[in-house]
Amino acid sequence: MISKQDLLEVTFNPPQSDWPAICRRPLIESGALRLQVAKIIEAVRREGDPFLLELNDKFHGTQFPLRVDEEEFKAAERFLDGSLKEAIETAAQNIGKFHEAQSGTESEVETMPGVRCWRRTVPIERVGLYIPGGSAPLFSTLLMLGVPARIAGCSEIIVCTPPLSASEAGELITKGCTIHPSISFCCALLGITTVFCVGGAQAVAALAYGTESVPKVDKIFGPGNQYVTEAKSLVSADGIAVDLPAGPSEVMVLADASASPAFIAADLLSQAEHGPDSQVMLVCTEEKIACQVQEELELQLQKLERKVIAAQALKGSKAVVFDSIDKMFDFANSYAPEHLIVAVADATSYQSRIINAGSVFLGNYTPESAGDYASGTNHTLPTNGYARAWSGVSLDSFVKRITFQEISAAGLEALGPVIEAMAEAEGLQAHRNAVRIRMRRR
Amino acid sequence: MISKQDLLEVTFNPPQSDWPAICRRPLIESGALRLQVAKIIEAVRREGDPFLLELNDKFHGTQFPLRVDEEEFKAAERFLDGSLKEAIETAAQNIGKFHEAQSGTESEVETMPGVRCWRRTVPIERVGLYIPGGSAPLFSTLLMLGVPARIAGCSEIIVCTPPLSASEAGELITKGCTIHPSISFCCALLGITTVFCVGGAQAVAALAYGTESVPKVDKIFGPGNQYVTEAKSLVSADGIAVDLPAGPSEVMVLADASASPAFIAADLLSQAEHGPDSQVMLVCTEEKIACQVQEELELQLQKLERKVIAAQALKGSKAVVFDSIDKMFDFANSYAPEHLIVAVADATSYQSRIINAGSVFLGNYTPESAGDYASGTNHTLPTNGYARAWSGVSLDSFVKRITFQEISAAGLEALGPVIEAMAEAEGLQAHRNAVRIRMRRR
Repeated sequence: MISKQDLLEVTFNPPQSDWPAICRRPLIESGALRLQVAKIIEAVRREGDPFLLELNDKFHGTQFPLRVDEEEFKAAERFLDGSLKEAIETAAQNIGKFHEAQSGTESEVETMPGVRCWRRTVPIERVGLYIPGGSAPLFSTLLMLGVPARIAGCSEIIVCTPPLSASEAGELITKGCTIHPSISFCCALLGITTVFCVGGAQAVAALAYGTESVPKVDKIFGPGNQYVTEAKSLVSADGIAVDLPAGPSEVMVLADASASPAFIAADLLSQAEHGPDSQVMLVCTEEKIACQVQEELELQLQKLERKVIAAQALKGSKAVVFDSIDKMFDFANSYAPEHLIVAVADATSYQSRIINAGSVFLGNYTPESAGDYASGTNHTLPTNGYARAWSGVSLDSFVKRITFQEISAAGLEALGPVIEAMAEAEGLQAHRNAVRIRMRRR
Repeated sequence: MISKQDLLEVTFNPPQSDWPAICRRPLIESGALRLQVAKIIEAVRREGDPFLLELNDKFHGTQFPLRVDEEEFKAAERFLDGSLKEAIETAAQNIGKFHEAQSGTESEVETMPGVRCWRRTVPIERVGLYIPGGSAPLFSTLLMLGVPARIAGCSEIIVCTPPLSASEAGELITKGCTIHPSISFCCALLGITTVFCVGGAQAVAALAYGTESVPKVDKIFGPGNQYVTEAKSLVSADGIAVDLPAGPSEVMVLADASASPAFIAADLLSQAEHGPDSQVMLVCTEEKIACQVQEELELQLQKLERKVIAAQALKGSKAVVFDSIDKMFDFANSYAPEHLIVAVADATSYQSRIINAGSVFLGNYTPESAGDYASGTNHTLPTNGYARAWSGVSLDSFVKRITFQEISAAGLEALGPVIEAMAEAEGLQAHRNAVRIRMRRR
């Protein structure tokens, strides 16, 4: 039985000076972890495949070849219910539709006569997708990363995911699986064939530096446990591109009197069940709503399989009651939530009030779990206040934009003096010469 | 007199297996520097303004107030030649035209009936621009960062740039300047009024964490010496957004028989004069061109004010001769240069062969210095091979894209079973409940 004092702590109308303290995320202590992960990365770089195989044996009790056989992807569909297969296909379609719309074209600009400038969008060649496995294989993440990678046209899409565990998935292993069939099914659906059963920090290291089997990639995507996120942070400091800085998942719900306490409680719990370090924030204009949500939380929490995890997450979470809708939005922008649910009357009319957020869910019939799986938006989003400067994963994350310029001799005649004057003033004579020598020799 | 053996080392038709070694950038040893910079950052966080003032006194011999008086921006134009002022205005216009064209709009997508998804582009609120000063004040960088920040609509644009040095700029100081008037002039042109005379690693630390005077920003932009780049790398590892990972500047020139050795040499030197760690690469299809460029380099180098710096940079640089244009482009993609000059006949026809590069200069009349100053493209670009995964600075760098979704009750009716099936399969019951509770209560 979880008692009331375990649930959300409520603050009333805090002055703006108190907001930074309320908005602070639970601190993650990473000193010891960092050392441990740095050692794993070092060992992968030094020993390569044998070390990856050794860890698979140690952590999962398996001795599978690192590269997953393509036959496994084709065979996967017989392990999945028809309804799940249809659901995955529908989700992939929706994600595809939304991300395809992100491939805008830009026109060339002639900034001055004879001076033409443009950008070409080019896919990143090799991308590595880390897909967490274990007890809950996050095949939805494979859709969220694999679909835009395909649309972008990345030439090599490499997936790493932990092998099945001998102790937990003996039956699947007997039937020839080495990774979870839901992940294999998504690989087949997306036409991804380069898949390695490698998990944890060692997977990130293998993708970052390459081993005999695992190719070095240009950018690494995907969530994971604290080892995985620490490894991404370390390789990122070494100049390897990653999707986003990592942090525990979080949701903020803004509610007025029109909101349903039961819906809100369900949304808060759907975030809380992710992990004990998930943070959920309820911000409302009515004390009554805060009380009713607490009651609903208690009620719904009892029935959850992951109630211990969810209850722990609620301990680090908060409720704030404000006396105006305006302050609610200001506070939300100050917190910069990964997920923001706007459960207020006429929610859509407030969209321009939202400055800092990863993904926004408007109205009473838009639960966060819709975006987690199937509405079409991406679920790889900036946590920990990073939404102030970062966007979530999108088609943009899988491409780069190269600028081009072509200047005619006449164009350089006009632009040349501008370049010369500026180079001269910056004390960069050779920059000036590169123009002057061309003018002289025409 | 600089002798021939100091110039480019030539390799002929290296096999692809040798490319990684040839493409390797000169290693920058940063261990000792990192400790030193970490200490500066720590002191800024602990002591704030007094420490910044102390360093200004120590390094520049000045005791100016940290915040530059707005009067200084207004007064700046009298220190600049008319031709320089016009040049800066033309450059700002060109940069403006090119970056304005980057603000594409995206349409809303109805991924399923009743499931609407869209992205809103929102400016990053507070951006910090670091502008190197000292002997060569890089006012062009202020244009490259300030113009797109203005177009994006960032609400606070904060500039840090070192104070004038008492020993080198006594006359300007007597006339009331605290920073270089070319930078002040650009601030006036762009309407930027929040400027601090703070340089080096301490400026990056102040922007990252805030002091009494300098506001904490959401993202830090701008190049700098090794202290500045190390500071950006350290605050970036702490979750502060920065424009790009840093590395020494570089150019690669691709040349066939149609190229002009004199133009190529001028372009190589305009890169080499940046600093002793700059790298220049000449890749050509003709041994003759490589020889002629060497001769031109010798000739032009002698006349440069910064010849000692440029000669040092050439020592770490290379020439490679291939027997086909195709191999040249493959090699360029393997190197992933910051700047790529394509001095081959019909250069524009090769643009789709370029997969990894920051900014590309096509044809014989498009020197790199055009892009450094005034063609309109941005000069803040990915170095060190980062062009494989990163784009240069653009309007995109000053905004984030927030995803929105709004689902109608009927839309959730259709999408709900998809979400429920996937949540169930991932073992996330509360995610499923958030849908189920809404369906039940309709």
